[in-house]
Amino acid sequence: MERVPVLKIGDILLVSIQIDMEDQVALQLQEDLAERIVATGVHGVIIDISALDIVDSFVGRTIAAIASVSRVLDAETVVVGMRPAVAITLVELGLSLPGVRTALNVELGIALLGRRETVTIDGDDEPADDGSDPAAVHTS
Amino acid sequence: MERVPVLKIGDILLVSIQIDMEDQVALQLQEDLAERIVATGVHGVIIDISALDIVDSFVGRTIAAIASVSRVLDAETVVVGMRPAVAITLVELGLSLPGVRTALNVELGIALLGRRETVTIDGDDEPADDGSDPAAVHTS
Repeated sequence: MERVPVLKIGDILLVSIQIDMEDQVALQLQEDLAERIVATGVHGVIIDISALDIVDSFVGRTIAAIASVSRVLDAETVVVGMRPAVAITLVELGLSLPGVRTALNVELGIALLGRRETVTIDGDDEPADDGSDPAAVHTS
Repeated sequence: MERVPVLKIGDILLVSIQIDMEDQVALQLQEDLAERIVATGVHGVIIDISALDIVDSFVGRTIAAIASVSRVLDAETVVVGMRPAVAITLVELGLSLPGVRTALNVELGIALLGRRETVTIDGDDEPADDGSDPAAVHTS
């Protein structure tokens, strides 16, 4: 079975998705990432999707699930390298990737994760996706 | 056509090979890498092959060719993540990957490239392949 490698670089884990994310591959990647987060104690996960021409709803949900699992394990997920056409498709599909931050490339993703580490108290303008809608709070 | 993404991280370019290296993919990767080395001015290339179960002679020659092109462009290549079975196969095939350094994982590869940068005067036991042999200069 094909397997997406998880690369550790400093305080982050890097995943470059290049192959078709079939069910087993996606599940295996989730497992591998969770195990590596626990084993290494990193606080950031970067998922590079620059090789993907198409991100369908399954891949979108897989990325969202990885982000949720990572958050439970105290690691933040940043998706990098998204192509413009992929972004348009995701929005059309109604997949806004809740809880997933994005950056244009790996270096900006690393910078984003680094910034989160240092200014975590000030930069807390992002709502948790546990049902508390800030817009609703705002107008109530 | 499938394409292997080239990721820039600091002073290195990282390539994670996960897909079958057919002719066009291999040529495209060589071109992409050469262009990115020139565009970014990096001095190190890391090729991760931890996803590969098998490295045949074509892939072996492709990696050697990438290393040669990189060296001409003043960038050193380190292959990381080689599985034990792949190492055995490579030696059996007579492919010793001349001019290619190896490390067990990405972090050790980055460390290897960093060490080369900082101690280049002391650690120059490897002759440059442009005809100017530092040992010859030393003894003249």
